[in-house]
Amino acid sequence: MAAQTLAQLQTVYLDPHTDTLVILDQTQLPLRTVYLSLTKQNDIRQAIYRLQVRGAPAIGVAAAIGIYLAAKDIQADTYDAFCQQFRAAKDHLASARPTAVNLQWALERMERVVQLHAACPPSSIIPALKQEALRIQQEDTDVCRAIGEHGLSLLHDGDGILTHCNAGQLATTRYGTALAPIHLGHERGYHFHVYADETRPLLQGARLTAYELQANGIPVTLLCDNMASQVMKNGWVQAILVGCDRVAANGDCCNKIGTSGVAILARHYGIPFYVCAPTSTIDFSLSHGGQIPIEQRPPEEVTTLWYQHSMAPQGIDVYNPAFDVTEHDLVSAIVTEYGIVRPPYTQSLARLAANHLQRA
Amino acid sequence: MAAQTLAQLQTVYLDPHTDTLVILDQTQLPLRTVYLSLTKQNDIRQAIYRLQVRGAPAIGVAAAIGIYLAAKDIQADTYDAFCQQFRAAKDHLASARPTAVNLQWALERMERVVQLHAACPPSSIIPALKQEALRIQQEDTDVCRAIGEHGLSLLHDGDGILTHCNAGQLATTRYGTALAPIHLGHERGYHFHVYADETRPLLQGARLTAYELQANGIPVTLLCDNMASQVMKNGWVQAILVGCDRVAANGDCCNKIGTSGVAILARHYGIPFYVCAPTSTIDFSLSHGGQIPIEQRPPEEVTTLWYQHSMAPQGIDVYNPAFDVTEHDLVSAIVTEYGIVRPPYTQSLARLAANHLQRA
Repeated sequence: MAAQTLAQLQTVYLDPHTDTLVILDQTQLPLRTVYLSLTKQNDIRQAIYRLQVRGAPAIGVAAAIGIYLAAKDIQADTYDAFCQQFRAAKDHLASARPTAVNLQWALERMERVVQLHAACPPSSIIPALKQEALRIQQEDTDVCRAIGEHGLSLLHDGDGILTHCNAGQLATTRYGTALAPIHLGHERGYHFHVYADETRPLLQGARLTAYELQANGIPVTLLCDNMASQVMKNGWVQAILVGCDRVAANGDCCNKIGTSGVAILARHYGIPFYVCAPTSTIDFSLSHGGQIPIEQRPPEEVTTLWYQHSMAPQGIDVYNPAFDVTEHDLVSAIVTEYGIVRPPYTQSLARLAANHLQRA
Repeated sequence: MAAQTLAQLQTVYLDPHTDTLVILDQTQLPLRTVYLSLTKQNDIRQAIYRLQVRGAPAIGVAAAIGIYLAAKDIQADTYDAFCQQFRAAKDHLASARPTAVNLQWALERMERVVQLHAACPPSSIIPALKQEALRIQQEDTDVCRAIGEHGLSLLHDGDGILTHCNAGQLATTRYGTALAPIHLGHERGYHFHVYADETRPLLQGARLTAYELQANGIPVTLLCDNMASQVMKNGWVQAILVGCDRVAANGDCCNKIGTSGVAILARHYGIPFYVCAPTSTIDFSLSHGGQIPIEQRPPEEVTTLWYQHSMAPQGIDVYNPAFDVTEHDLVSAIVTEYGIVRPPYTQSLARLAANHLQRA
C-alpha cells in the first residue's frame, strides 16, 4: 500500500487544471499524506520556511512556480511598476531559506524572463513566466536522472550505502540527487542496502528517506546520527551518498548539519564519500565554504520534538545550525548531471563550467 | 529554583529510615522530579532496565542496595539454600544491563560478603550485606571526587568542553565522572562552557546533562549529536570529557553509542579526548573492546520518542545499539580515581592495577 502511495506521490508541481502550486506537506510524513494547494505568495514563503517543501531542487521548483503565481497577482500599469513589485516578491520568497542557492537561482531565472520582456506589454510576461517555471520543473527531473546514471557507475551490486538527511525523490521532482543512483539501480535489479541517518533535529532521514525507500521496496535500516560510526566500523557501508545545498568553487560542500561529521568518519574508516550535486548548487562566486552563510534555526526544534513535548530544561541555551560545510579534501567525488568531478576541485569544477555551464 | 532542586537531589541511596532503595526516576527529567521507593527485586531490576537509574556507578550502587534488599526477602534454613537463592537474585539483577560492568562488579562484591559468612548463621549475613552496600555508596562519592581532582588538572580556566551522554552527578552518587572535573572546577571559580550532545535515542544529554549543569549555574549549550563536528570546527572546544561503561585491558573504551564518533571528530580537529573511568569499569579479562557484548535495544526507542508519537514508517528496520567501542588509539588519556593513565594502555593500565587494585 505504501508503494502504491509513492507511485502517486508528487513532491511539487504546478497543477495544470487549477493553476496552483501543489506541495506534498513533508512535515506530516510519514504519518499523513497531505497535499497543500497554494496560490498566495505569503503562504508559499511559509511553506518553504517551515520545510513543508524542502530539498534544494524542490525548493527551486516551488520558488519558480511561486514567483509565477505572485506575478499573476501584480496590479501594475507599466513595465517598471511591474518590475518593482516583482522584485519585492522575489526578495520576500528568497528570504525564506538564505542558505539554499537553488532558491536564488530559480528566482534569478524567472527574473531574467521579466527582463527579456521589457519591450512587451505586462500581460505577455505571465505566460512566459509560467512556461519558464514548467521548464525548471522538467529540467529537474532530467538532471536527477543524469545524476543517477553517473552515480550508479560508482556503486556495485550488493553495496551498503549510508546517507544523511533526505536528498531523494521527496527533495526533487523525481529520483532525487543522492538517492537517484539507488532508485535507478534498484529499477535495474541492483541489490542495495541503505543506512539512513535519522538526521536531527527535524528527522528528515526517519520521516522521509526511510519512507521513500521502504515504499519503493529498497531495503533500508534507520539509525540515529551518532550510530553511523558503528555502522561503518561493522563493515556494512561501501559508499556514502549525500546531497548538497551549495558547493563553493573549491569543492567545499554545504549540506544538512551533520554531513561534515559523516565525511570525517568516512575518511577514518576508508569509505568513499560522494556528494551528489546538480550544477545549479555550484556557486562560483564563493571561493571556499567559509563564505556560505549558515542559517541558524530556532532552539525549539532541538528542545521539543514537533513542538509538543519539552525534552530539555526551560531556557536552556541551544546551538541549532541547519547546515555545515564539508571541506573539499574530505569529498571523494562530486556527482553532477554532466558527470563525475574529482579533486582538485578548483580546476575540475572550472573545467566543468567551461564545458557545460553558460552562467559561470 | 532549579538549583535548589538539585541541592536536594540524590540520585540513588538507601533510605536509612524506611530501609528502601530510593531512585530519582531519570526517565521523567527534566520535567518532573519523581523519586521511586523500591524494595522488591523485580521492581529494582525493572528500574535498571528501563534506565530510571542509569550511569555505570549509580547502577552499581543500585544493584548493591538491590541485592541486599532481595537478600532480606530470602526464606532459607541453611546457608546453602540461602546461597542458591542469593545467586538466582544476583543473576536476575545482572541480566538487566549486560554491558554495564559495574553492575556485575557490585554484585560480585556483595556475593563475596555472603561467601565470607559461610560459617555464620544466615541472620548475620543481612547486616553485613547492608554495610557493604553503604560502603559501595560512600566509595562512589570518594572515587568521583578523586576523578574530578585529576581531571581538573587537564583543564584550563575558560575552556569549552564537549561531553556526550550524561556521566554527571545524575549518573553517580555525587560529582559524576566525566562532569566531576567541571563541577569541582566550578566550585573553585573556573569558568567553563559545556557543549552537551543531546545523545539520541534517549536524550540523556538534553534531559540530564543540560539539567544538571544549568541547575548548578554552569554555562551549557545543548546540541544535536550531529552538530558536534561544527562546534569543534568553530574552535569552541578545548577538551572532550566522556564517561565510560567498560574499559578493556588495551584501553578500548565502551561508552554510550556515538562516543567513538566524537573521538574520531576530536582526532580530526586536534582536540584531546579524555575518558573518565573509575577503575571499577576496567575489565582486565578482556584484551580488547571487540570482546565487549553490545546491548541492542528496541527499535521503538528510535522510531518513537517516549513511545508517544511515531517518527518513522511502520515496520521500518532499525539499528539501535546502546553503546559503541572507542579504539584506544583515539583516547588521549583515561582519568581514574588513582590518576591519569596515558598510552600505551596495555602497560599503563597493568601498572595501575599492580599499584592500586587487588582484584587485577
